[in-house]
Amino acid sequence: MTDHSDTLGATEREIMYATHQALVKSGYAKLSISLISDELDKAKSTIYHYYDSKDALLIEFLKFSIDRFESTINTTIGDHPKEDLDHIITTLLPSQLKKEKRQLHCVLVTISPQALEQEAFREQFTEIDNRLATIIETTVRRGVRTNVFRDVDPAQEAEHILAVIKGTMYTRLTTNREAAAVRARESLFSHIDSHLIA
Amino acid sequence: MTDHSDTLGATEREIMYATHQALVKSGYAKLSISLISDELDKAKSTIYHYYDSKDALLIEFLKFSIDRFESTINTTIGDHPKEDLDHIITTLLPSQLKKEKRQLHCVLVTISPQALEQEAFREQFTEIDNRLATIIETTVRRGVRTNVFRDVDPAQEAEHILAVIKGTMYTRLTTNREAAAVRARESLFSHIDSHLIA
Repeated sequence: MTDHSDTLGATEREIMYATHQALVKSGYAKLSISLISDELDKAKSTIYHYYDSKDALLIEFLKFSIDRFESTINTTIGDHPKEDLDHIITTLLPSQLKKEKRQLHCVLVTISPQALEQEAFREQFTEIDNRLATIIETTVRRGVRTNVFRDVDPAQEAEHILAVIKGTMYTRLTTNREAAAVRARESLFSHIDSHLIA
Repeated sequence: MTDHSDTLGATEREIMYATHQALVKSGYAKLSISLISDELDKAKSTIYHYYDSKDALLIEFLKFSIDRFESTINTTIGDHPKEDLDHIITTLLPSQLKKEKRQLHCVLVTISPQALEQEAFREQFTEIDNRLATIIETTVRRGVRTNVFRDVDPAQEAEHILAVIKGTMYTRLTTNREAAAVRARESLFSHIDSHLIA
């Protein structure tokens, strides 16, 4: 998989970081090229040189975020399916959500309503999930092949795990049910122990 | 549990339906009291008579939606824990998402970014999940007590099931991964068969 963010120039990367800051501070509804240029400390024309509109910039921003997201997961995947699966879950669903990761997840929630109707946003959210599902499925498949896991359907199992992760992420970010999020996370480890481990 | 929507007068109920229509058509970012009054076919002052602001109206709207949401689930819960659990899952995660239910779910996704920072919205999203978790937990607990289910932790099991449901709901609404949603739904039934059934 190519890392899309490698193809961005220095200014485009600065625009991406400024967009992140502006989104964190103001949310999608209030976000504007003006706010992003304030964060960037460069003229609005610099941004318009690269992106035609706020939406075009945000699509690029989603691509950029997906790569960052994926790289935090992929770096330490090894040859131990059970430990690798634990690592994936712990990375996406840490017991304590630190500020930077919380901001990245919040940005995804902030943009998600755009994906309800706009195909370009929908494609990016599809891409995020496809990549996460592939990482999980590959790990489960390796576990089944090496008899560490039972003979489950890796694609179905991956979607189950991903759904718990996503559901719990939303619970954490949009409700005061932190104890529920802890329970859901524990339930996922217990599901893996009882359902997956051979 | 009291049904909050019973306490609303006729005009307030009309405002709620108009808000639903306006949200479906325009999304949160563009929503205004003007748009709602267009749907209502009454003057803006009618709305302001009941609600001080767009946010106050939306909090009321969430309360109203929660009751409608809950009533669709509670009506047909009986004395058969396995069938009741299947019913809850099928209601929240139907194999085909019909238009009206899709709109209700879309409205929740549309409003969810408000819950990231605003406590009044966060409380309503907490309330939705608390009610759903309680319905699921009560059903699992009854299954454990009557030996239909194994001796699982009903609260943890409820959060697991709810997380799969929520994660899959978001997948369906914000991505093109319908096959993934079908897999996640199937995985939930298979989880119940292998993990819960005694």
